[in-house]
Amino acid sequence: MKTVKEGEVRKREILMVARELFVTKGYEQTSVNDILKIVDIAKGTFYYYFASKEAVLAAIILDIVEEGAKRAERILKDQSVPLIDRIMMAIMAQSPEFEGSEEIRDQMHKVENAKLEQLYTKAMLKRMTPLLEVAVAEGIAADLFHLDYPRETIETILLLGHMLFDCNIMDWEMDAYPVKVKGFLANMERMLGTRAGELEDFLQMFA
Amino acid sequence: MKTVKEGEVRKREILMVARELFVTKGYEQTSVNDILKIVDIAKGTFYYYFASKEAVLAAIILDIVEEGAKRAERILKDQSVPLIDRIMMAIMAQSPEFEGSEEIRDQMHKVENAKLEQLYTKAMLKRMTPLLEVAVAEGIAADLFHLDYPRETIETILLLGHMLFDCNIMDWEMDAYPVKVKGFLANMERMLGTRAGELEDFLQMFA
Repeated sequence: MKTVKEGEVRKREILMVARELFVTKGYEQTSVNDILKIVDIAKGTFYYYFASKEAVLAAIILDIVEEGAKRAERILKDQSVPLIDRIMMAIMAQSPEFEGSEEIRDQMHKVENAKLEQLYTKAMLKRMTPLLEVAVAEGIAADLFHLDYPRETIETILLLGHMLFDCNIMDWEMDAYPVKVKGFLANMERMLGTRAGELEDFLQMFA
Repeated sequence: MKTVKEGEVRKREILMVARELFVTKGYEQTSVNDILKIVDIAKGTFYYYFASKEAVLAAIILDIVEEGAKRAERILKDQSVPLIDRIMMAIMAQSPEFEGSEEIRDQMHKVENAKLEQLYTKAMLKRMTPLLEVAVAEGIAADLFHLDYPRETIETILLLGHMLFDCNIMDWEMDAYPVKVKGFLANMERMLGTRAGELEDFLQMFA
């Protein structure tokens, strides 16, 4: 008799193989059969764990949210780095842009996969908000931030960062981005109630 | 021979009938045949104008954006109303909430119709941003608003208003909404660089 733990291992194995195939071969070009062959399981076993190839992709997206949150968590904990830098780097590190899984991000951004994009956004907000709440509370205690709605402001910043820069909802020309980033940082400074230019200064690190 | 104008009339007729059916009978329960019967056209004529029932729904959604923008435009032009009130009412009037087309909004918000939600968001941002740019410029000239990135801030406010309050992305409990609205208005005040409490005062009108 299979134990719960064996089931979990099998499931992780399917996810690992599928992710590798989606990234190397492409999502559309990968069939459930391709996955079965490598994991060496029967079709019935696959469908015991996942309703469809798309369900596998959804599970991979939740894994990506979790990995991003873990990176953000590590960065936020490093007290040797100034708080503003930690917060900015945590937000950037959470984005799947840093994952190298372009194929999966491309899939998520396709119009017909908009529900996967929603899945990502919801899961990311739920996972990241409590992490940043701790960091923003630290900034308030240090007289660096001044705001009345920390939780709502964090939700706003996470949602905006994702919608403006990770999605393809805005239809901006490439050369519009520098001013869009500056506008976002200026508004973030105002919402956090920090010194004007504080976040733009951080950006200079990359210039 | 049919003229372009006749074609446009036929298309509008299909949209009007379909919208009526979607709202009264429900989208899922309405078939292309139901639409054909009322408009009294052949299947081929329908498919000459629309690729599918979903394409009809997409066209209706673009109509809803246009209707909302027209309402917003009328409100913004009424110089007898204080600017802040006009801007707030224009943003609220643009939302399909005011259309009475609950069935279509519900369809748009279903997870499997996420691409229609995206279609709405993109079209709404494109159509509404220039309208609000004029209003915000008026506020800057009147020393009421103080900001460096008006266009980016308008895009941000429209996107936030829609994502936070018209979509089902946030998973908030019903009783969280009052504080979420307050947080949104406080952040909007900061981004526009207006007096703290200026927008919350507007909200009192509805209390």
